[in-house]
Amino acid sequence: MLTARYLLRALRFCSSAPCPRHKPSAKLSVRDALGAQNPSGERVKVQGWIRSVRSQKEVLFLHVNDGSSLESLQVVADSSFDSRELAFGSSVEVQGQLIKSPSKRQNVELKAEKIEVIGNCDAKAFPIKYKERHPLEYLRQYPHLRCRTNVLGSILRVRSEATAAIHSFFKDSGFVHIHTPIITSNDCEGAGELFQVEHSSKIKLPEENFFNVPAFLTVSGQLHLEVMSGAFTQVFTFGPTFRAENSQTRRHLAEFYMVEAEISFVKSLQDLMKVMEELFKATTVMVLSNCPEDVELCHKFIAPGQKVISFVDKPQYIYSLNIISYTEAVEILKQASQNFTFTPEWGIDLQTEHEKYLLKHCGNIPVFIINYPSALKPFYMRDNEDGPQHTVAAVDLLVPGVGELFGGSLREERYHVLEQRLARSGLQEAYQWYLDLRRFGSVPHGGFGMGFERYLQCILGVENIKDVMPFPRFTHSCLL
Amino acid sequence: MLTARYLLRALRFCSSAPCPRHKPSAKLSVRDALGAQNPSGERVKVQGWIRSVRSQKEVLFLHVNDGSSLESLQVVADSSFDSRELAFGSSVEVQGQLIKSPSKRQNVELKAEKIEVIGNCDAKAFPIKYKERHPLEYLRQYPHLRCRTNVLGSILRVRSEATAAIHSFFKDSGFVHIHTPIITSNDCEGAGELFQVEHSSKIKLPEENFFNVPAFLTVSGQLHLEVMSGAFTQVFTFGPTFRAENSQTRRHLAEFYMVEAEISFVKSLQDLMKVMEELFKATTVMVLSNCPEDVELCHKFIAPGQKVISFVDKPQYIYSLNIISYTEAVEILKQASQNFTFTPEWGIDLQTEHEKYLLKHCGNIPVFIINYPSALKPFYMRDNEDGPQHTVAAVDLLVPGVGELFGGSLREERYHVLEQRLARSGLQEAYQWYLDLRRFGSVPHGGFGMGFERYLQCILGVENIKDVMPFPRFTHSCLL
Repeated sequence: MLTARYLLRALRFCSSAPCPRHKPSAKLSVRDALGAQNPSGERVKVQGWIRSVRSQKEVLFLHVNDGSSLESLQVVADSSFDSRELAFGSSVEVQGQLIKSPSKRQNVELKAEKIEVIGNCDAKAFPIKYKERHPLEYLRQYPHLRCRTNVLGSILRVRSEATAAIHSFFKDSGFVHIHTPIITSNDCEGAGELFQVEHSSKIKLPEENFFNVPAFLTVSGQLHLEVMSGAFTQVFTFGPTFRAENSQTRRHLAEFYMVEAEISFVKSLQDLMKVMEELFKATTVMVLSNCPEDVELCHKFIAPGQKVISFVDKPQYIYSLNIISYTEAVEILKQASQNFTFTPEWGIDLQTEHEKYLLKHCGNIPVFIINYPSALKPFYMRDNEDGPQHTVAAVDLLVPGVGELFGGSLREERYHVLEQRLARSGLQEAYQWYLDLRRFGSVPHGGFGMGFERYLQCILGVENIKDVMPFPRFTHSCLL
Repeated sequence: MLTARYLLRALRFCSSAPCPRHKPSAKLSVRDALGAQNPSGERVKVQGWIRSVRSQKEVLFLHVNDGSSLESLQVVADSSFDSRELAFGSSVEVQGQLIKSPSKRQNVELKAEKIEVIGNCDAKAFPIKYKERHPLEYLRQYPHLRCRTNVLGSILRVRSEATAAIHSFFKDSGFVHIHTPIITSNDCEGAGELFQVEHSSKIKLPEENFFNVPAFLTVSGQLHLEVMSGAFTQVFTFGPTFRAENSQTRRHLAEFYMVEAEISFVKSLQDLMKVMEELFKATTVMVLSNCPEDVELCHKFIAPGQKVISFVDKPQYIYSLNIISYTEAVEILKQASQNFTFTPEWGIDLQTEHEKYLLKHCGNIPVFIINYPSALKPFYMRDNEDGPQHTVAAVDLLVPGVGELFGGSLREERYHVLEQRLARSGLQEAYQWYLDLRRFGSVPHGGFGMGFERYLQCILGVENIKDVMPFPRFTHSCLL
């Protein structure tokens, strides 16, 4: 039998064997054209959509964009090329010579020899108007067209870059990626704010469940990651999660993405916070390196101001310097001169107004809050066995502008402690499998989740979460 | 205001600034320990689960695995360490010296100075038994524990590696990643085999839809990728898709993963096939490079035989050599001496028996089949405007052992052709937004989807799709 190594060699050989491939084409993306060093008239072909047209007496200027970068490529053509079809939004293929631009506004331009209009754009009907800056709310009405604007283009490129960065970070750190299930029969945690899933023809007949049991859309991959953390010491997932919340705020979606990680043999929240911070930093460095113009566009036009991620330039923004306990946080709130709608008191859930105050109090840099009241948190969090103010080893990371960005905890790995906790909640039977994980080679472990859209809002300064999601879903709205 | 570039510099500076981090620990993963070059007694700490115990008169041998590799680390300890707790399945932390192994079976071993049992394993109750090779069907009953076996460990590592490879391939090729929606209001394509989604409290009251309209789990991200391909010339998605099919075969799941790509300005199926093949090759090379032992384990124990991916060592396995048209395929089938359950005839859907014959006929290497009857395919495929045997520009890639691995097509980008097609199917109103994409700067484009689980089955030789999915969902089953 052929071994994997042999096959690999064969496959490599095969790739380099002469084969009837197409001759490399002179087709270039706009990004590659713009990045050309010292162009000297190479013949190239560029395809994209017209973003601007300027017709002068003898020359015609077009800007062509293909989504590979925020910047468009300037095409310079003889005025004989001028035609009504060369209009904003039309798709074109331009062939010509790539040359150094005489203007200071760009390094490179394309001297057109042939311009072909591929698809016209009906300007009257097109909801995106030439030279207009449409508000984000306006664009939300056109989920099938808004990606054709500069601002959505930038947001989507950043989203793509951040996605790649997150996968790289975990891979480079030795994590195993797990596709945790989207449909699940665990229904206890979400308590009422769940989407149920059923065969479309059976939706009115719940006695005939497709899966034999009621099935729901996942609210978190954590419990399934914990399964995996009994065999792999570092695992992560990055996928969609769902909440059937009836809220139409700028912070909530029915479908959103979470990055979740679970680490075995972890004994302290410090170890978790270190990974959270590394993830945040590595992703942000990658995004800022690879698409600085896109980030800058968002800062300039969406969030003009200095607050956006300006905390990252502060040396204090280093793990372990901004950690306060829940108990300390409540003390800070109690001593505040501000009047809160919800009176701060040990035992209450921290509200948005509290988070905002705490962030301001700490100098508008990210703050970790640790050790929350046991009564506020779900059954799986590790008991700190303290008292009389009984806490669990939970941690949230608050960031300016967004509030809670990360949430995590150590998990209760002690069989008997967990068993009692489940029994008290009447969940012992449903979670027998979860108890099993503690019966067979249990290890101390912990993990966290990061809201991906909130992360994007945080680094870009985008106010409404609907604008960082390609196709946002929320109460009363599921367009396309 | 701070620019993105400035922030980036600041962030980098901040990362290198002195800070009170923990001293680098001597903790090593098993993989890193095994990979140590010329170890000479460095003191390290390794954590994991005991995979085997061998107690001799004066020496105790343990094999410790932490999921970072198939191979376990051999721990050699004085027999004074021996204890009943050091048993198969228990979790341990071992400290000691990393040394060159005198045995030829491994390069490195850990001379234990301290062994701590972290969590015991109740051997009687543990469904995975020491030194037994459990059939995959048996393991399927324990979705929360099966990852602790060698074979599932290998499959999951390969799955993780392939996931990373796919993201890298598309990123390196300049594609923008798009999170296409999971919940969608498009219900036309799936025709009856859809999962519907509703707030769990409203599931019996379909007149009160959470989203105002009936909403379903996606069967494909294609149409949403097409939206994006009006602004970005290369986009991809890699996420879960769903079919509410009432089938319990070894080939079907209710929830599975698809890799889908859409490319603008593509005019021929050849260009699409090139990308499909490059994706397949790049991913497979990466998997075989990074986890050859895992692949080999699967080949040896699950699929002993020479069929598995042995086609990759054949120089003929080069794009453009194995392309046959649907019409040619039917001719081949007609001339076959074999009796088929479904008589081959122009216009029929190719059945599994037909695919198998065609693959054998072509020498058990992958085969592209192109240009299918228009009547068999959905409205969005590009009309070849031929006749009398009317076809569309569709392509499938068949591979040995699995059948259809990829499916793709050119899309109908011509407004009037698409409009007529939609009108004939009564879909014109529902797909007004889709027509819009052709009204405003339409471009010729096409794309494809690859079934990710089928890909894994193909390269690993795993017969049942349920074994390459961490938590498989299918009719009557949604465990955990």
